Amino acid sequence: MIKAGIVGGTGYTGVELLRLLAQHPQVELKAITSRKETGTPVSAMFPSLRGRVSLAFSEPGKAPLRQCDVVFFATPNGVAMGEARALVDAGVRVIDLSADFRIKDVLEWERWYRMKHAAPELVAQAVYGLCEVNRTAIRTARLVANPGCYPTSVQLGFLPLVEAGAVDLDHLIADAKSGVSGAGRRPEQHLLYAEAADNFAAYGVMGHRHWPEIRQGLAQIAGRDIGLIFTPHLAPMLRGIHATLYARVTREANFQALFEQRYAAEPFVDVMPAGSYPDTRSVRAANHCRIAVHRPSESARRADTLVVLVVIDNLVKGASGQAVQNMNIMFGLAEASGLEQLPVVP
Amino acid sequence: MIKAGIVGGTGYTGVELLRLLAQHPQVELKAITSRKETGTPVSAMFPSLRGRVSLAFSEPGKAPLRQCDVVFFATPNGVAMGEARALVDAGVRVIDLSADFRIKDVLEWERWYRMKHAAPELVAQAVYGLCEVNRTAIRTARLVANPGCYPTSVQLGFLPLVEAGAVDLDHLIADAKSGVSGAGRRPEQHLLYAEAADNFAAYGVMGHRHWPEIRQGLAQIAGRDIGLIFTPHLAPMLRGIHATLYARVTREANFQALFEQRYAAEPFVDVMPAGSYPDTRSVRAANHCRIAVHRPSESARRADTLVVLVVIDNLVKGASGQAVQNMNIMFGLAEASGLEQLPVVP
Amino acid sequence: MIKAGIVGGTGYTGVELLRLLAQHPQVELKAITSRKETGTPVSAMFPSLRGRVSLAFSEPGKAPLRQCDVVFFATPNGVAMGEARALVDAGVRVIDLSADFRIKDVLEWERWYRMKHAAPELVAQAVYGLCEVNRTAIRTARLVANPGCYPTSVQLGFLPLVEAGAVDLDHLIADAKSGVSGAGRRPEQHLLYAEAADNFAAYGVMGHRHWPEIRQGLAQIAGRDIGLIFTPHLAPMLRGIHATLYARVTREANFQALFEQRYAAEPFVDVMPAGSYPDTRSVRAANHCRIAVHRPSESARRADTLVVLVVIDNLVKGASGQAVQNMNIMFGLAEASGLEQLPVVP
Amino acid sequence: MIKAGIVGGTGYTGVELLRLLAQHPQVELKAITSRKETGTPVSAMFPSLRGRVSLAFSEPGKAPLRQCDVVFFATPNGVAMGEARALVDAGVRVIDLSADFRIKDVLEWERWYRMKHAAPELVAQAVYGLCEVNRTAIRTARLVANPGCYPTSVQLGFLPLVEAGAVDLDHLIADAKSGVSGAGRRPEQHLLYAEAADNFAAYGVMGHRHWPEIRQGLAQIAGRDIGLIFTPHLAPMLRGIHATLYARVTREANFQALFEQRYAAEPFVDVMPAGSYPDTRSVRAANHCRIAVHRPSESARRADTLVVLVVIDNLVKGASGQAVQNMNIMFGLAEASGLEQLPVVP
Repeated sequence: MIKAGIVGGTGYTGVELLRLLAQHPQVELKAITSRKETGTPVSAMFPSLRGRVSLAFSEPGKAPLRQCDVVFFATPNGVAMGEARALVDAGVRVIDLSADFRIKDVLEWERWYRMKHAAPELVAQAVYGLCEVNRTAIRTARLVANPGCYPTSVQLGFLPLVEAGAVDLDHLIADAKSGVSGAGRRPEQHLLYAEAADNFAAYGVMGHRHWPEIRQGLAQIAGRDIGLIFTPHLAPMLRGIHATLYARVTREANFQALFEQRYAAEPFVDVMPAGSYPDTRSVRAANHCRIAVHRPSESARRADTLVVLVVIDNLVKGASGQAVQNMNIMFGLAEASGLEQLPVVP
Repeated sequence: MIKAGIVGGTGYTGVELLRLLAQHPQVELKAITSRKETGTPVSAMFPSLRGRVSLAFSEPGKAPLRQCDVVFFATPNGVAMGEARALVDAGVRVIDLSADFRIKDVLEWERWYRMKHAAPELVAQAVYGLCEVNRTAIRTARLVANPGCYPTSVQLGFLPLVEAGAVDLDHLIADAKSGVSGAGRRPEQHLLYAEAADNFAAYGVMGHRHWPEIRQGLAQIAGRDIGLIFTPHLAPMLRGIHATLYARVTREANFQALFEQRYAAEPFVDVMPAGSYPDTRSVRAANHCRIAVHRPSESARRADTLVVLVVIDNLVKGASGQAVQNMNIMFGLAEASGLEQLPVVP
Repeated sequence: MIKAGIVGGTGYTGVELLRLLAQHPQVELKAITSRKETGTPVSAMFPSLRGRVSLAFSEPGKAPLRQCDVVFFATPNGVAMGEARALVDAGVRVIDLSADFRIKDVLEWERWYRMKHAAPELVAQAVYGLCEVNRTAIRTARLVANPGCYPTSVQLGFLPLVEAGAVDLDHLIADAKSGVSGAGRRPEQHLLYAEAADNFAAYGVMGHRHWPEIRQGLAQIAGRDIGLIFTPHLAPMLRGIHATLYARVTREANFQALFEQRYAAEPFVDVMPAGSYPDTRSVRAANHCRIAVHRPSESARRADTLVVLVVIDNLVKGASGQAVQNMNIMFGLAEASGLEQLPVVP
Repeated sequence: MIKAGIVGGTGYTGVELLRLLAQHPQVELKAITSRKETGTPVSAMFPSLRGRVSLAFSEPGKAPLRQCDVVFFATPNGVAMGEARALVDAGVRVIDLSADFRIKDVLEWERWYRMKHAAPELVAQAVYGLCEVNRTAIRTARLVANPGCYPTSVQLGFLPLVEAGAVDLDHLIADAKSGVSGAGRRPEQHLLYAEAADNFAAYGVMGHRHWPEIRQGLAQIAGRDIGLIFTPHLAPMLRGIHATLYARVTREANFQALFEQRYAAEPFVDVMPAGSYPDTRSVRAANHCRIAVHRPSESARRADTLVVLVVIDNLVKGASGQAVQNMNIMFGLAEASGLEQLPVVP
């Protein structure tokens, strides 16, 4: 049994990690910390876990995290960079669900996240945990930077096209829609039910923190910088990301086949039949990513633009599920272990 | 008082017309027809109208439509083209909320709507009722083809750019999201609450009937054919369209000023301050269209793509409200008459 | 034109008041205050009001409230009791949408609201603004305590039965469900979209502040104390209250007729035909209250229990709409003036 | 491995059964039938099952149902009563999720379901599958009538009180709220998203088919007839039932202890601590029933009424989950086998 700890488990990625780890056949949950909730039983905050999770939140300094095999950080940005060092030095493997170790260019990170980075040397060492790209490096990683939710969906959708050098890399467009749980659990006015329900709006068009993360990932694959317009939207739903991607074809290919081949061996990426329209509920509460590739012809003057549709559950493949997938890879477990729950429909 | 009739008032555009006309200070509602509901009081089907609308649905053939000054068709496609002729000949002015008279190229229409057109000569005569474009022609029109919901939002968003010849007309992209009421009131499985709630998906990427309508409108303004990728999505909300438009700049301009000037005199188009993110609820139940223009620079390799955000209420400016606006123009009333209700927030 | 001011207009009852007053033909909006938002244009906070409300929030101390004919308090509990005195003394009529003046027994009020009352003498003077009960007193009132949302629905539903002395007054049951806007606009975790959506729960069974208000109102009508179980629930919707009321018959009557007669002259209470099921959307964004009376016989061992179904929009008849109705009564205007907007369906 | 078949798997209870059985470690899914969808792969209709369920729908007459150990009927009412006989005679154990075998009084059943019963002799033989009541009989049952969703929640909530003879059995009140999936997947207008979203209403007050089922169950426990007012409501959510139950105390007891003791050994009934408010999401997609018992004192003239709050997921404990629980009991498996998924929050 792998002994696992969670730092900061009171948010949505935290409770989702708890849900997944509590059902994982090879994991023993050893500790979960929360400064504010020290002493509170986890199941008092999340009655959905009654009878299954008997832990209480423990004080960050006193939790037996160093006795764990792996520690997950489900903390706000800026926490993991201060605390991961000690754990890594103690031989504990760390998976950070926040953004602290995702951007290799520390100055770029500091510009977007508006704080001084506390552990630049760990950034260099961290492996970006997009399983479908970095599986080999993840196996031996001591510190994994778990990808953001939008970046997971957008990169998985553009990946085969960028690898194949088949599209105009200067003008990628990602029009992405996210459920409200992606914005976290802190009480902010614009996230109130009475603000977000029956409503729809874009945000962050002029700059969103996930933009440099996506750019870094795609540029690395392309071997050159890329141009990307990224438009996130808040959709009135609990979970789910739907990314609608646009790319101009520069080199012809059988794009359906290209996607199918790229992801043939991937346990969690499902390339749907030509003509499909994946909906977010088809991955609700599950670690899957479903993709469909369209090439509008009738409805376009020139049939040179691809439309790629990608859905994930932002809390699973976009956060806690991918973190568990990373853990499975790091510890040599079956990659789907603990992640076999089927999507919940309706 | 203008005497108004409605053909087919049991759907969502029908009840919305009833709501608006019942509150219009210069309109007297004379008749509303429904084959299936003949005899049923309107307020029995829509209790929201109790005490305010005393009409019952009458049999199509027997309703006093020819005694009306104006008749609205809120019918499925294919009905108005068979019945408008007689009314127009009787001197009744007709506003058709269906698609029957929207496409000038009758063969194109027949291809998209999969039926033979019953009144091609009326198509030629009909005025496309996008008020902001065809106001002059609408004034004297005997038959107005009221625009579709998506086409209203997409055309209003691209209009200033196309008029100014400022963008690449071969590669326009419209990523549009609609509330479920836009799909109508017929019981279809995919529109059930338990299918559409907490869910999000694209549809019609390979061809949607609103595509030729948008193309026709923009091409007419451009004076040449245009290329457009149009991706509609179903969003889990009652009302509202959010169109996110992408266009590549080919000629520089102050785009904020361009939009503000174009719509300065328009009573129902609101160009928001630079940096704004209009949300659909800001136009809920009202006839407004709000637009914001963004030009991402920091987040793009080349700052040559504009992102235009457009919101309307699909049932008001996207259907029944615009129909009333058209009526106001046709009869020389104040253009905002009966359309002054403020949006409902929250 | 009646000059109106609003104290504290940044919450949901505030913006709803703005929506209603901005459309009221006999009202001129003179001032709206907010300590935190001083200087912010109202339409910057609520873009739905762009082009229609040109006021900015002004500092509470400096706003020309004493030049108003009427001032509405849309403030948290505890504010109006400190500020109403000066206005009333200056001859301004005050309508308080908070709970400060609703409970006549000041000690009882202090127990439920956990603060010392600052103006007990004003409590005595205040008129409880349930229009259907206190219309005569409201006409000349200098200070009106606008009823709470639940109390409005529950009292209107029990009223005819209590007046007729027809039911067991010791065992009334009110099972009430409210949309989330009823809980206000302050950012609290349990009101987040991701907490409240697709979820349903009771709260306050062991004691809710609206209980003493309902008890006071019904007891006053009954001429004796009453017993009431009141179970509020939070329902995943924006607006609307559905109160399901249960009462044991002690004296036979034609209950349908009883309700119809009681409310025959009321402009905003609609007794629906026998067998009806009012839904909350049938009053959405409107000042109506719809009521249906059922007496289950087939499905009960003894047919001695009445089930009364009541719907209102919590922000309109349950708050700001009733406040405007009170203003209309106080100033001798047509009672429905400014309140004639039809419900928004769908 | 238990070989299982499903008759009629295209509705919500069908797909939920598929989700649960596909994850059940001791079940092999052998056949699923659908007349209309013969030949369609299950995963084409439900993409959420892609990669996990490889069956196609087969023609009812040709499916190898007799080779199954157990067959589930997830059919509309009236189908199982015609087809179960042959299977039972062939030694196949049958679990019927429809209402065909729930009511022992066949005339009563025929009155409520408005059809002639095709197999009265099977009704006598069927065991009502409320596990917490009939576990022993279920073990050996050849035919189990799986309870309805409302009846499961209402019976579990009243059960300890009725067994203890502690409340007035003539005046039980059940005010129940259900998510829309409970109404099934047939396209009916009132179940459309645009009808049911942001809306709330009661229905069936004058008679609902679940009323005789609840009455039968409680009367059997009580040993006498009971009186029950049952008010179902449609709530704008996907899944979940919240039953709010009212009962007048006739014999004092420690009711918290009474409930805790009654359900101490039950794997799926969770009596929450005194003062709790269970929410429906705390059982979302899981087989649990959570219950809280309240006795309002401060807020009642006489503290003689109990308020019991019960939540279940209508598709799991209210349908398919309980069906699997019944199967586990019938085949001597661990009762929670295949039902250990944790609730999905948020």
